[in-house]
This record gives sequence, structure tokens and C-alpha cells, in this order.
Amino acid sequence: MRKTAEQEAAEEAKLLAIIRESFVERMPFNRILGIDVLSLHHEQAECRFAMRPDLVGNYVRNILHGGVISSVLDVTGGLVAFLGVQQKLKGKPVEEILERFARIGTIDLRIDYLRPGTGEWFLARGFPLRTGNKVAVTRMELFNDRNDLIAVGTAAYTVS
Amino acid sequence: MRKTAEQEAAEEAKLLAIIRESFVERMPFNRILGIDVLSLHHEQAECRFAMRPDLVGNYVRNILHGGVISSVLDVTGGLVAFLGVQQKLKGKPVEEILERFARIGTIDLRIDYLRPGTGEWFLARGFPLRTGNKVAVTRMELFNDRNDLIAVGTAAYTVS
Amino acid sequence: MRKTAEQEAAEEAKLLAIIRESFVERMPFNRILGIDVLSLHHEQAECRFAMRPDLVGNYVRNILHGGVISSVLDVTGGLVAFLGVQQKLKGKPVEEILERFARIGTIDLRIDYLRPGTGEWFLARGFPLRTGNKVAVTRMELFNDRNDLIAVGTAAYTVS
Amino acid sequence: MRKTAEQEAAEEAKLLAIIRESFVERMPFNRILGIDVLSLHHEQAECRFAMRPDLVGNYVRNILHGGVISSVLDVTGGLVAFLGVQQKLKGKPVEEILERFARIGTIDLRIDYLRPGTGEWFLARGFPLRTGNKVAVTRMELFNDRNDLIAVGTAAYTVS
Repeated sequence: MRKTAEQEAAEEAKLLAIIRESFVERMPFNRILGIDVLSLHHEQAECRFAMRPDLVGNYVRNILHGGVISSVLDVTGGLVAFLGVQQKLKGKPVEEILERFARIGTIDLRIDYLRPGTGEWFLARGFPLRTGNKVAVTRMELFNDRNDLIAVGTAAYTVS
Repeated sequence: MRKTAEQEAAEEAKLLAIIRESFVERMPFNRILGIDVLSLHHEQAECRFAMRPDLVGNYVRNILHGGVISSVLDVTGGLVAFLGVQQKLKGKPVEEILERFARIGTIDLRIDYLRPGTGEWFLARGFPLRTGNKVAVTRMELFNDRNDLIAVGTAAYTVS
Repeated sequence: MRKTAEQEAAEEAKLLAIIRESFVERMPFNRILGIDVLSLHHEQAECRFAMRPDLVGNYVRNILHGGVISSVLDVTGGLVAFLGVQQKLKGKPVEEILERFARIGTIDLRIDYLRPGTGEWFLARGFPLRTGNKVAVTRMELFNDRNDLIAVGTAAYTVS
Repeated sequence: MRKTAEQEAAEEAKLLAIIRESFVERMPFNRILGIDVLSLHHEQAECRFAMRPDLVGNYVRNILHGGVISSVLDVTGGLVAFLGVQQKLKGKPVEEILERFARIGTIDLRIDYLRPGTGEWFLARGFPLRTGNKVAVTRMELFNDRNDLIAVGTAAYTVS
């Protein structure tokens, strides 16, 4: 029997709540970055974070530190990789899902810095390029609050 | 007249002191990362930072967040790019040198994560692959306190 | 006075003819790859090439050599970088345009191999991510004749 | 009983002969590139190829096409990845070793172009950065006949 749209939405909301919580609890640097997981939907992930004085890389121009950008895009790609494996874990206990989440590792990452990271908040979006059994490849984009494309990234993750 | 080795060492020490200070003052996220610039010498840069609970990406395994690694390697590569342009600014006022430092921008960055980031402190080393008038390309390596190679990176910077 | 759509189309066709010719004449390895420049339009470039026994990297599976893929995507990105500089050269003599074309250099390139390169022909598409005065950053995609996404790439080029 | 140095050298020579032959027979594009596998030793691989008119990317300056460089560095990295898996296959039949060789796939590749590819012949060297059970990460360098560093690369391969 196929799930109704309502059931699917409820499962998604539950997963989102779990990830959101464990994301900050279990990954302290995510708290430093102030990342909030906005949505995990249809293989895509969206994260948001606000500009804060701590995240500045150039105090004259008040722009994001490049490391904040690479960090957030890596995290967003990791969520997309997780969504791929999570498909196969539906109905499993939360702890098993989280344990699997913790095992996802970045193999490599490329970030292209396109425009200065100015803005009051930023949105990172990730989607899959390849969802393999061992390796996932993802694409990520960072936008500011004026919808300027600040940076893009591509990353490979081990997912097994 | 060629400079004596002593004069060169004195200039290097002075530059190091200036960069060290401005690095934390002007780039707040570097303070979050706890980066200390150890040496800027013969076109190479060395940075060090200590493990701290805030920098953890996986609380079960107590390993560095991947974003800390990409951030520190990007910063280290940027210092190497700066060393290339600084050669031409010798004798110029400090403010001019710092202004030039602030204009260096990362074009793109690749990070390869080789081993889990465990350790009490970490050392990042960077050296130039190409020192052009417009673009510098650098190579970076991150070691832990047992001298394990944790990650490597390659980055391109605009330097003009 | 603004150009009519007809004038623009005529200019585009002329540029395409010039590039097409010089592409094979002046860049012998492009002939080996069998690249044909299909279109140069609205900042995008499209190239096409046919599978040939010479381009195979794995004779058992009859798939494209990875080097063919990286070669074609680099060439396609270079065309996009060229389209950016060519905007400023409109009306200049052909030789000047070609001289500028020849000076475009790849700084770096990342290729992600997503699916085996099977097919009778392949289409590469490139578009700009950043069009600077010194550096252009482009994104490229390779599809086979069934519209499967075979590989993607990102590259940075010097354009000045 | 440990193998003598002579036995090891004999095994290496045999493997080199097999790879050399299958390299050209089974991977036609390697013949186009004119790659000769010089050595497979201590986890490192060395390949050599000669400049030929077909490999030129810029006929005015007579330099290598960037695609030749990325192709050769990818191939060299693949050989290093193969050397890692081959350790576990010692004593196995040649066909099994070759079958495993054919299954190695490039996940992604980054090439940095440092200097124009001028020279009468070129040497590519590869060594491992990480030798995992599923993924190998390698580093590659291309030198010309004057020992100038022309390009470097980093690549990840699936090896299982």
C-alpha cells in the first residue's frame, strides 16, 4: 500500500525534527555556525544561518569568512548524502538512523567563491548528483538575502 | 646592497607580528577557530590551533568538524598567497601591506579529507604552487599532534 | 541605436563560424576529440562529439575514457569564458578576437564522473558562474544521447 | 617466509609488463595519448609521453592541450589506486588482476595548470594520499623535460 501524502509529510517533519536537534547537540561546530536545517524534502536540503560578528572574515567590508561558506556548504551536502541513505532506512529506529548519519564522511569538497558574502542571512541549498551505495556526490549553492549566488560547491561523501 | 641574514630575520619577525595581530583583530572568525600564525618564512606559512569542544563535528568520536579543516586550510593558503605579493611591497607602510592583504580573495578551494581529525592540536602548512601577478595557487596540508596527515588542500587566490 | 534581433543573430553566426574553424585548425587535439561547437548563445556554449573507437577508455564496457570527458568539459568551459570577454570586443577585427581567445587559460578544473560514458554521441553544455575582468568561473555538464548526465565540471579561467 | 628482493623485483617487472600491454590494448585513448607506463613501484606510478602535433592545444605557442594533461594525470592516479588494491591480489591469476584494474573508476578529479606545457616529452608521477577499502585518493604531478612542474592533480577513485 502506498503512503498517503499526509503520511509522507508527517514522516518528513519527524525526520527534520530529529536531524535539527541532533545537528546542534551532536555537532557543536554547527552551533557556532548557527546553522538551522530548514527543509529535507525530495532529496534536497536547505539550511539557513544569520550573519553574526563572529562569522566575519573581513571586518572592513563586513563579509563572511570563506571558512564559514565552505563549512555550511559541506554540512548541506552531507545532509543530501544522508537523505539518499535514509531512503533505505525508513521505519528503522531513530538511533539507527542517527548512527548512520554520524558515519557519513566527506571524501572531498570543492568550493567556488563567486561574490562577496554580504547579507543579513544566507540560504544554502543542496541536491544530489549521484546517489550510489558507497559514494554520494552532491551540489550545493549559497545565496544571500537578496538572492545573489555567493558560492557553489561540489562534494563526494562515503555513505556506507 | 644585499640585506644581511639578521635584517631579513628582523623583517620577517615584524611582518609576522603584524599579521598575527591583524589576523585576529580584523578577521573575527579566525579567533573562533583559534588560529595562531606560527611562521611566515621562505614562501611558506604555518598555522596552529588547539582542539576545543566548539570545533567538534562528531561528538561520539570527538573529531574536528570538516568545516574547521577547510577554514584553516583556506586561511593558510591565503597567507601563502599574501607572502607572494608581499615580496613586492617590502619597505612599504604597514597600512599599505595590510590593505593588500585584505584584498586577497579565494577563487576556489579543494579539500581532501584523509583521516579523522583527532588530536589535541593541529598544524597547517602551506606552500606556493604558482605565484602569478593576478592569481596564486597554493597547496596546504593539515597534520595532527602525532604528525598524521589529516587533510590536504589546493586553492587559487586573486592577488592583484 | 540598439541592434535588431536579426543583426545579433548574424553576428552570433559569424562568431560561431570563426570559432568553429579556428577551433580545429589551431587546436589539433580538438580534432582528435572530434569536438564540434554547436552553439555560442546568451553566454552559453554547446559542444557535441561522436563516440569513436579511439575515445574508448574501457574496451569491455565500451565507455568513454575519463580523459575525453575532462578534455571536452575544459574546452566547453573555455568557450564560455571566451564569450564573457568577447562581449567587450564586439566590432573588433577577427584576428584580435582570436588572439584574445588563444590567451584564455585554465587555472583549475574539477570533474565529477557520475555515470559511465556510454552512447553514440555526447553533448557538453557550459554556462558562466562568474564573469570577472581577470577570472571567469564556469560550470559544465556532459549528457549522452539518452540525456543521461554523465559528468559535471567546474573550472576557473584567466581571461585578461 | 618473506620474499627476497629479487622475487619482489621480478613480480614488479611482470606486473608492469601486463599493465603496459593491457593499457594500450584495452584502453584505446591511452594509445592516442601515447602514454607509456615507466614504473609501478613502492605505491608510486610513473608515466611518460612524448609531445606530438596531435596533442597541441595552441598551435601558436605549441603547448600541450589542457585535456591531454588532465587525461594523463587521471590515468596516472588510476594506476596508483590500482597499486593499492593489487597488494591484496598478489598471486592471483592475471585475468583477475586485470578485471579488478578495469573496475577502478574515477569519482572526481581536480587539475591545477601551473605552467605552459612546453617540452619534447613529459613525465607524470602519482602517489597515494589515502588507500581505503572503498575509496583511494591520489596526488599527481606533471613535469616537462626540463623538470618544470607543469600541472598537479588530486583525484578520488572507487576501488572496490
